[in-house]
Amino acid sequence: MYLSYTAGGLGAYSDSRGLPGIRKEVAEFIERRDGYPSDPELIYLTDGASKGVMQMLQTIIRGNGDGILVPVPQYPLYSAAISLFGGALVPYYLEETANWGLDINNLRQSVAEARFKGITVRAMVIINPGNPTGQCLSVDNLQQILRFCHQENLVLLGDEVYQQNVYQDERPFISSRKVLLDMGPPISKEVQLISFHTVSKGFLGECGQRGGYFEMTNIPPQTVDEIYKVASISLSPNVPGQIFMGVMVSPPKPGDISYDRFLRESKGILESLRKRAHMMTDGFNSCKNVVCNFTEGAMYSFPQIKLPPKAIAAAKSAGKVPDVFYCLKLLEATGISTVPGSGFGQKEGVFHLRTTILPAEEDMPAIMASFKKFNDAFMDQYDDHRGYSRM
Amino acid sequence: MYLSYTAGGLGAYSDSRGLPGIRKEVAEFIERRDGYPSDPELIYLTDGASKGVMQMLQTIIRGNGDGILVPVPQYPLYSAAISLFGGALVPYYLEETANWGLDINNLRQSVAEARFKGITVRAMVIINPGNPTGQCLSVDNLQQILRFCHQENLVLLGDEVYQQNVYQDERPFISSRKVLLDMGPPISKEVQLISFHTVSKGFLGECGQRGGYFEMTNIPPQTVDEIYKVASISLSPNVPGQIFMGVMVSPPKPGDISYDRFLRESKGILESLRKRAHMMTDGFNSCKNVVCNFTEGAMYSFPQIKLPPKAIAAAKSAGKVPDVFYCLKLLEATGISTVPGSGFGQKEGVFHLRTTILPAEEDMPAIMASFKKFNDAFMDQYDDHRGYSRM
Repeated sequence: MYLSYTAGGLGAYSDSRGLPGIRKEVAEFIERRDGYPSDPELIYLTDGASKGVMQMLQTIIRGNGDGILVPVPQYPLYSAAISLFGGALVPYYLEETANWGLDINNLRQSVAEARFKGITVRAMVIINPGNPTGQCLSVDNLQQILRFCHQENLVLLGDEVYQQNVYQDERPFISSRKVLLDMGPPISKEVQLISFHTVSKGFLGECGQRGGYFEMTNIPPQTVDEIYKVASISLSPNVPGQIFMGVMVSPPKPGDISYDRFLRESKGILESLRKRAHMMTDGFNSCKNVVCNFTEGAMYSFPQIKLPPKAIAAAKSAGKVPDVFYCLKLLEATGISTVPGSGFGQKEGVFHLRTTILPAEEDMPAIMASFKKFNDAFMDQYDDHRGYSRM
Repeated sequence: MYLSYTAGGLGAYSDSRGLPGIRKEVAEFIERRDGYPSDPELIYLTDGASKGVMQMLQTIIRGNGDGILVPVPQYPLYSAAISLFGGALVPYYLEETANWGLDINNLRQSVAEARFKGITVRAMVIINPGNPTGQCLSVDNLQQILRFCHQENLVLLGDEVYQQNVYQDERPFISSRKVLLDMGPPISKEVQLISFHTVSKGFLGECGQRGGYFEMTNIPPQTVDEIYKVASISLSPNVPGQIFMGVMVSPPKPGDISYDRFLRESKGILESLRKRAHMMTDGFNSCKNVVCNFTEGAMYSFPQIKLPPKAIAAAKSAGKVPDVFYCLKLLEATGISTVPGSGFGQKEGVFHLRTTILPAEEDMPAIMASFKKFNDAFMDQYDDHRGYSRM
């Protein structure tokens, strides 16, 4: 079926925006998801979502006076791309004690501070579900964000690549676009939104194919045309990745021969990930000096590790940032490879690590036991007050 | 075999520089081609050559004071990308009457004029074989270029994506890198060269896969590391495109089961393209007002169309550039779709069209007859002096 979109093969360039047939399927997927029609002409396929995010940031950033609001902790794509394009990253902190929620006052303060420095804030990034923080944004929170973007005339970049990865039922994924359109005019007609999705996450996880799309809402037609022109410089996104996108957005339907198997397998993967999210969070929280919010969505656990002064001093004399020091010790002792929280941004004086919930379900108990054993030994070595109450 | 490079599948991200096993095969291909060893650590795989060119231009261009020497006529990737990254295009004209050769004095003049305007010329682009002009650069010409880059401290960007597409035997393709290394020190040790190749051209022609590479010669190690860092922002090039690159650079060898067939098919494709290049050039040159250099390489024919004053006036009153006017008339009359020369750059007052030599060999006589018929009718309509001698 997909070969009919490509005149019979994968060997030719496609339209620089992607194959029209696939963009139509993406539009149908979005309509089924949100309950509002979507226009295939406003959907561009990309070599993975990252390339789409980069293209949009490059379009928005005119120079070093332009700022982009980015959540901290954040996925380093944003800091790296903003730096590459010569813009300014304007951080807004997610509240760890409020389950990595977004405080709108905090956001206002970030914008005010940036303005004071002469920065024109042009856009705001949200990552929902969060990477590396794993939270799912509520409808209420999304409405606040959209009202804020309306007031401040910000383009909203909605990184929604983990929309299929949700591990609780209280806050199912809801797209920024649905919340926007539900709000009605003037906001629904005026806030400019670009939403990103990928074949790399979900239960498909086909990262190597580099398939992604972005959908533009309320973007002026001349801007859409310019974005097309820029996309055409590099001719077209890779065609196999586009086909994967088609497969992802048009899964088997009831009555299709593969429907039962698809349902069983996809459900199985997501249920297992949910179990793993619980096992990992519980494992971290079983350590006295570790505090970890539950992974509501995405694929990551981002526990805070409370490091005693002696560990911080030892890190310093080893010439390392404390969380890097801890993660390297963990790697050496157990073979568990994690990413220090400093790579994602964190508040001054607190330390995290990021890990994925992707190890096999049956391996998870041994991994968390190994982590706990390491952490206990680390604390025995570096915490003089071990056994006493700590903050 | 290729799956052994990927831990068994195509679904995971690769190294941001591309799979090590494929980069090793590319290095072996380059060594066989040039007779000098190549280092896989200096070869980065990309989503097509265009993405590699864009990454390098972005690395080189610091701001609007930085200029890039680009041949005119040129492939629009260069003008578009330089404009996107905020640099200055510094044109050097190829000499149509010298078979689209490069005049080094012309090059010097271009650099002097740019300097006078306050532009720092940082790099020079060559396209060999040429797009859209189809010429193959001689060793002598390449040596002049490399000496010039050495004197002027320019990075040379060698777009060599048509290296397999050569249709004459006097000037076989020779890589910039081989000429550079043949020249010996200090030039061979000092001129910074980045060479590009792709799976989209040659006889493979797998454009939709978006596979490419660039190889860095004499680039400082810190710069190589920075380029790696930038490549890692978008995680990895698509993995199937990398596999295609591996297949292209490691064709069947004597004794392999598919060797004879590979030889027959690839030779057949190239021989047919050579015939088509001749048929098309001859067809164009059979029209009195058309002058066309032979397509020595690449895939394009770029005839000059001498338009009479009445045609230029008619174009003007239709609100069109003369070559666009001619190409649209050609399209309407015959269905033959060509690209006006103004899209590639041409000297003031001369007009071209670009077309590919890719129509099937058996269709070529009818296509050229159809072109000639249109052109004759066009000249009957617009040339009052038809039948008389013209310049």
